[in-house]
Amino acid sequence: MSTFGTLYRVTTYGESHCASVGAIIDGCPPGLELSAADIQTQLSRRRPGQSNLTTPRDEKDLVQLQSGVEQGVTLGTPIGLLVRNEDQRPKDYTETDLYPRPSHADYTYLEKYGVKASSGGGRSSARETIGRVAAGAIAETYLKRAYGIEIVAFVSSVGKIHLPSSIAPPSAVPVNGADDNDDVEDSLSPEFRKLLATISRAEVDKYTTRCPHPETSERMTKRIIRAKDAQDSIGGTVTCVIRNVPAGLGEPVFDKFEAKLGHAMLSIPATKAFEIGSGFRGTEVPGSKHNDAFVRKADGRLGTATNWSGGVQGGITNGEDIYFRVGFKSPATISQAQETAQYDGTPGSLAARGRHDPCVVPRAVPIVEAMAALVVMDELLIQNARKTAAALLPAITTLPPTMVLPKGKQ
Amino acid sequence: MSTFGTLYRVTTYGESHCASVGAIIDGCPPGLELSAADIQTQLSRRRPGQSNLTTPRDEKDLVQLQSGVEQGVTLGTPIGLLVRNEDQRPKDYTETDLYPRPSHADYTYLEKYGVKASSGGGRSSARETIGRVAAGAIAETYLKRAYGIEIVAFVSSVGKIHLPSSIAPPSAVPVNGADDNDDVEDSLSPEFRKLLATISRAEVDKYTTRCPHPETSERMTKRIIRAKDAQDSIGGTVTCVIRNVPAGLGEPVFDKFEAKLGHAMLSIPATKAFEIGSGFRGTEVPGSKHNDAFVRKADGRLGTATNWSGGVQGGITNGEDIYFRVGFKSPATISQAQETAQYDGTPGSLAARGRHDPCVVPRAVPIVEAMAALVVMDELLIQNARKTAAALLPAITTLPPTMVLPKGKQ
Amino acid sequence: MSTFGTLYRVTTYGESHCASVGAIIDGCPPGLELSAADIQTQLSRRRPGQSNLTTPRDEKDLVQLQSGVEQGVTLGTPIGLLVRNEDQRPKDYTETDLYPRPSHADYTYLEKYGVKASSGGGRSSARETIGRVAAGAIAETYLKRAYGIEIVAFVSSVGKIHLPSSIAPPSAVPVNGADDNDDVEDSLSPEFRKLLATISRAEVDKYTTRCPHPETSERMTKRIIRAKDAQDSIGGTVTCVIRNVPAGLGEPVFDKFEAKLGHAMLSIPATKAFEIGSGFRGTEVPGSKHNDAFVRKADGRLGTATNWSGGVQGGITNGEDIYFRVGFKSPATISQAQETAQYDGTPGSLAARGRHDPCVVPRAVPIVEAMAALVVMDELLIQNARKTAAALLPAITTLPPTMVLPKGKQ
Amino acid sequence: MSTFGTLYRVTTYGESHCASVGAIIDGCPPGLELSAADIQTQLSRRRPGQSNLTTPRDEKDLVQLQSGVEQGVTLGTPIGLLVRNEDQRPKDYTETDLYPRPSHADYTYLEKYGVKASSGGGRSSARETIGRVAAGAIAETYLKRAYGIEIVAFVSSVGKIHLPSSIAPPSAVPVNGADDNDDVEDSLSPEFRKLLATISRAEVDKYTTRCPHPETSERMTKRIIRAKDAQDSIGGTVTCVIRNVPAGLGEPVFDKFEAKLGHAMLSIPATKAFEIGSGFRGTEVPGSKHNDAFVRKADGRLGTATNWSGGVQGGITNGEDIYFRVGFKSPATISQAQETAQYDGTPGSLAARGRHDPCVVPRAVPIVEAMAALVVMDELLIQNARKTAAALLPAITTLPPTMVLPKGKQ
Repeated sequence: MSTFGTLYRVTTYGESHCASVGAIIDGCPPGLELSAADIQTQLSRRRPGQSNLTTPRDEKDLVQLQSGVEQGVTLGTPIGLLVRNEDQRPKDYTETDLYPRPSHADYTYLEKYGVKASSGGGRSSARETIGRVAAGAIAETYLKRAYGIEIVAFVSSVGKIHLPSSIAPPSAVPVNGADDNDDVEDSLSPEFRKLLATISRAEVDKYTTRCPHPETSERMTKRIIRAKDAQDSIGGTVTCVIRNVPAGLGEPVFDKFEAKLGHAMLSIPATKAFEIGSGFRGTEVPGSKHNDAFVRKADGRLGTATNWSGGVQGGITNGEDIYFRVGFKSPATISQAQETAQYDGTPGSLAARGRHDPCVVPRAVPIVEAMAALVVMDELLIQNARKTAAALLPAITTLPPTMVLPKGKQ
Repeated sequence: MSTFGTLYRVTTYGESHCASVGAIIDGCPPGLELSAADIQTQLSRRRPGQSNLTTPRDEKDLVQLQSGVEQGVTLGTPIGLLVRNEDQRPKDYTETDLYPRPSHADYTYLEKYGVKASSGGGRSSARETIGRVAAGAIAETYLKRAYGIEIVAFVSSVGKIHLPSSIAPPSAVPVNGADDNDDVEDSLSPEFRKLLATISRAEVDKYTTRCPHPETSERMTKRIIRAKDAQDSIGGTVTCVIRNVPAGLGEPVFDKFEAKLGHAMLSIPATKAFEIGSGFRGTEVPGSKHNDAFVRKADGRLGTATNWSGGVQGGITNGEDIYFRVGFKSPATISQAQETAQYDGTPGSLAARGRHDPCVVPRAVPIVEAMAALVVMDELLIQNARKTAAALLPAITTLPPTMVLPKGKQ
Repeated sequence: MSTFGTLYRVTTYGESHCASVGAIIDGCPPGLELSAADIQTQLSRRRPGQSNLTTPRDEKDLVQLQSGVEQGVTLGTPIGLLVRNEDQRPKDYTETDLYPRPSHADYTYLEKYGVKASSGGGRSSARETIGRVAAGAIAETYLKRAYGIEIVAFVSSVGKIHLPSSIAPPSAVPVNGADDNDDVEDSLSPEFRKLLATISRAEVDKYTTRCPHPETSERMTKRIIRAKDAQDSIGGTVTCVIRNVPAGLGEPVFDKFEAKLGHAMLSIPATKAFEIGSGFRGTEVPGSKHNDAFVRKADGRLGTATNWSGGVQGGITNGEDIYFRVGFKSPATISQAQETAQYDGTPGSLAARGRHDPCVVPRAVPIVEAMAALVVMDELLIQNARKTAAALLPAITTLPPTMVLPKGKQ
Repeated sequence: MSTFGTLYRVTTYGESHCASVGAIIDGCPPGLELSAADIQTQLSRRRPGQSNLTTPRDEKDLVQLQSGVEQGVTLGTPIGLLVRNEDQRPKDYTETDLYPRPSHADYTYLEKYGVKASSGGGRSSARETIGRVAAGAIAETYLKRAYGIEIVAFVSSVGKIHLPSSIAPPSAVPVNGADDNDDVEDSLSPEFRKLLATISRAEVDKYTTRCPHPETSERMTKRIIRAKDAQDSIGGTVTCVIRNVPAGLGEPVFDKFEAKLGHAMLSIPATKAFEIGSGFRGTEVPGSKHNDAFVRKADGRLGTATNWSGGVQGGITNGEDIYFRVGFKSPATISQAQETAQYDGTPGSLAARGRHDPCVVPRAVPIVEAMAALVVMDELLIQNARKTAAALLPAITTLPPTMVLPKGKQ
């Protein structure tokens, strides 16, 4: 349904042809300095009309805070917010009233609800994501302030154009060699790990593609323009890193960190794939090479020498950088004519009019960041409840050796 | 936490060194004929010791039904069930009391809970999945009986050994050609779609690898034996098809069908990746080729000519076959010596003793099926609540043309 | 938190000094004819300034629908709505910045959130209930249309002034006689049952007290005016009947119908007590007199001769009228001076300025109705999911006699 | 359904004629010393056969811990536990196969589930409460250890026999005087407050009635024996106090402390009424007398001079003793013949055979305590998550005076 989260919880409403889209954020910690600008920054990174790579619609998407914040400080009560839809007329009668757009949500929404909204795909509209981005921006503000947590997403591929192997996510690195041979690349590229450790939103935003590699970005730009010119569309992937997350987050067995994260990402429109750490690539590397050996870090804590795990082991964060990749299919709405059938089964040709994104991944970047923030925030609150509760118990002095922690962990 | 689902809900308990593992299944429809055998079949497909490819532990995993069923018929009340752990002694003091196993859950469980269980990774034990498989088997019994829904999973790769391209899932098909060239394979292989349409569990179980292709299975067998002999491990992928699911399942915007399914799959131990339909491959195929055109089917309903979508559009099932792929990393526990560090940071070498699976994917097949059944069951109940509610309303006669359905849909 | 319900779910935001109060209603059945007027009617019954018995504030509380409804028909997607706060300035510095109001929420909100909102009690403001009433009004519209369900609440007492015994709820009937004597009134008054069966909102609204008995209403009016003149306040009870609810609603063992209903009612500001059917009175009547014997009704179904149970047995509705009573304490905010202490413990005298309701029960009537509607709606959807699922199973022909239903039930 | 709680969550299964009843407790803090004896104590207080006032069935109800505890210490993972049903045969064919017992759950369970279990009322069996009591006992162990929280329930009335006015809960104090007169008792009896502050389980258990007042207990005993001899039944009330709960618990607006508590209590079999603090009595006392003035307590914190509020204001605990009263109707199952109708509507006379409790309140005492513990535990964990999160934020130095706390609160 339209609520996500347990203790930090967002509920959204709205689609493209109604008065506004909005959200209620429940469970935000009280005492957080928060302004509309903290939210607007991410909304503006998401809005259409930012470059020639996105839909020419130019909506300002100005957020209006309704409640939960007073004098610039959160009260701990629900934060209501909304963004007006500038053009909210139900659209005129068009071909898409006769035709369900292929691979869009028109048909399935009708099957599900039995009512045909003027927008066709109802809540599958990209405008639905405004509420998520706002909720995520608030979560991020907290996470940054209280934990120094940083979340940065970037475009890692458009169509078949990927980042160079040295800085590409593991699954995007081409593997050569015979199938039965183990001589695959057996380590994560140090450049990729450095990229994860250092990439910033400022750097990402230097590129209209949001792919932080000049040559690749340029090729992606051409690829997107080519799709646009052909009244076609193209997909891509977004890779995201979350830094400085403490160890211990994730709620096995069903709400493991990656399960919740995957859930979050696969709820974003147009996503078809998710992987964390080595992902599909990790299925090919033998355990002896794939295991992340432990090392003592400078601060005395345990860390891992490699990070195939992507910061999560056994469904629980281990303190290392969390990274994951999300696949967005090529947008379904294209202006090119398509041979398909009408709702009543009559075959025909559909050319969807209107202004569409030829490629959604540049604008998907802040959405991915937002959903990541929602997951971290919620799991953090839950784990803090547990830790605080456990810390109040008297120490147990009679534990057997197998349950006693070695010196340094006690 | 340890509960999954909204209306059909499973809660599990247990790990490897306690008295039993078990589950409570709440929300099972009343009036379903159900015997322990319906559950045992899937538990036995999951249990260790089935072949020389799995751990030599030989546990019978006999399920004991406790409640919710009388005279072989479900009452609609919670079904309690359990499986005894045959060897439940907390294990002896071993090296793994000093060393957290690399890439296993020992370290993260300790960070999360602050207590070191004798089993190390606590609930990350494969025995935890018994409850899921049992709950899924009950759901399947209902789904088969009431809807003719069929769920069949199979192994699609072990290490770098994949099914032949003609019958491999889209992402596993090697793509050649320049990055900027759209001349990728632009259709799903008909053989792959046929495999999805016809594969049965009986066919899958002819192979100890559970890969239903003789030559590939043989190569996989050798690959697994090689890992075993080297005291190493290897990962793989499981592909699953769900047939005969009605259109309309999935609860946007946060509980889209693929989001819930991804959540379910990524909660299975050792999973790192999930994709539905074209998945990562779908990011590379232009919209004009990737869109699934509508066609009128023999029964008069709309169907799609292709199925890149994997049976889900806009987060809602469209009535076509649902298929997805899950990536399992190489198991973390290996007997080979690994250079790593102790809990206290002391560097050293760990060789985990004991009996481990060199490759989990053959045994993961019934777990994937179970989690798929849980998702379908839950989303089906929720959608039925909506449909039943809507059907009780009087028809609206004054709807404008844009909301009126074409003839044949009314 | 600020979300209520499982399948029909309302989330609210807002307090008295923010821009607006509002709600998101998720899970409303699609295809329901719904206008703002359907909602406004109940909001207007709730709003202040309706008579000289309520606070003189005169707010219009006009609802603005944001989403989920198109051309006057629900789409099945979330319904966003809001009501502007006409005066949203954070209030000026007053005595209540120094003093927590006795028995109000000022102190506990501060303890909970650590931040002192200008409104003091934050979300304990009566304006918070606007979202509930709106959500309930939508639910009611559905329930009336699809099931003919009717929900009518009325004031049954103000202070010590109760309805006459013949039409008072069971607990409010004075019991005389020795404690050890069973000779208590052993039946529900037929007049009371008739009142439950026939009372309408139109009848209730003839009285500014919303107590549908002229003499009692007049005495209540005087009592409230007396409290008002004394700058004091007085409490009361609201009794509510729900008619035409089908048998089978309620989700044992934790979400029994009365548990969910009690939860709903006790979440309304100022409530301290809830009872269903015979309530506390039922603790005094022996089982032999209290049991509701079954009888065959005109339509061939089973009904009960009496209705001490209040329409619920074993946590599940039985098809009879559901009735319950809710106790509202005397409002905490009074203008009379009170000896109390400041936040820092300094003793002193507080006289709260401003305009307050001397008695909340007349305005509480639509709030009670709304919360009742939310519970019925949610439990109805859940039970319909179960029934639909069970109905799809093939009949079982081999059940033993003890599980076979007698003729007429099959 | 059969799960209760958000972060501390119990799920139960089982009824009277199945193999066992049990529960899974999820979210127990790790590092808690816990033995079966901690649980058994409360189970034994609940079990039948404790005195001549309860059913003569004599079941030992020995708990078997399955998981989540190792070496006497909780691991933080789910705790599975069960109690065998000693006599688990589906019962023989009896009159209750033809007749739904009046005011019992036989009829409504059949309406809900469509299947007739041999036990008739299915999960409405008192054995269902075993899981709750076990889960509550674990919560209590934590609450006592970490916070010194004490929960003590006792019987406050049986039929019309109440505790003397001086130590009776507010609602049970007879009010004399004209309806329009405010001269009601305007304070809580100091003896009652002292009883709340000092009563212990040891004291309560001195009486087979669990009413800690010798003369009243004796009269109650006679009343229960009289019901038993007459093959009849009688109801009663249980009053409960929770001491040492910190201020700040409760999650407005829908999960206020009393709402969650009421939900919990009204989910116990046979309950019909709940009130907190002054309850229904509080509707009759004017605000000026009912408000609890603040005073500085010995430790410098604010407390209240009186406690009509019952420890909860605005849905949030204020640090004072929490007290509430629960009404249990007279048990429905009686051996006396009752004129009623069969399932098929045929009129007739039913005399339920078997062994029944003539009065459930003595055995309900530990059930009320358990449900109270579940609520406190869950709300405590949630509030701790919030407090911990807020404490990590930097202090805000620029707050306006109206949001600044007076000295002593900062």
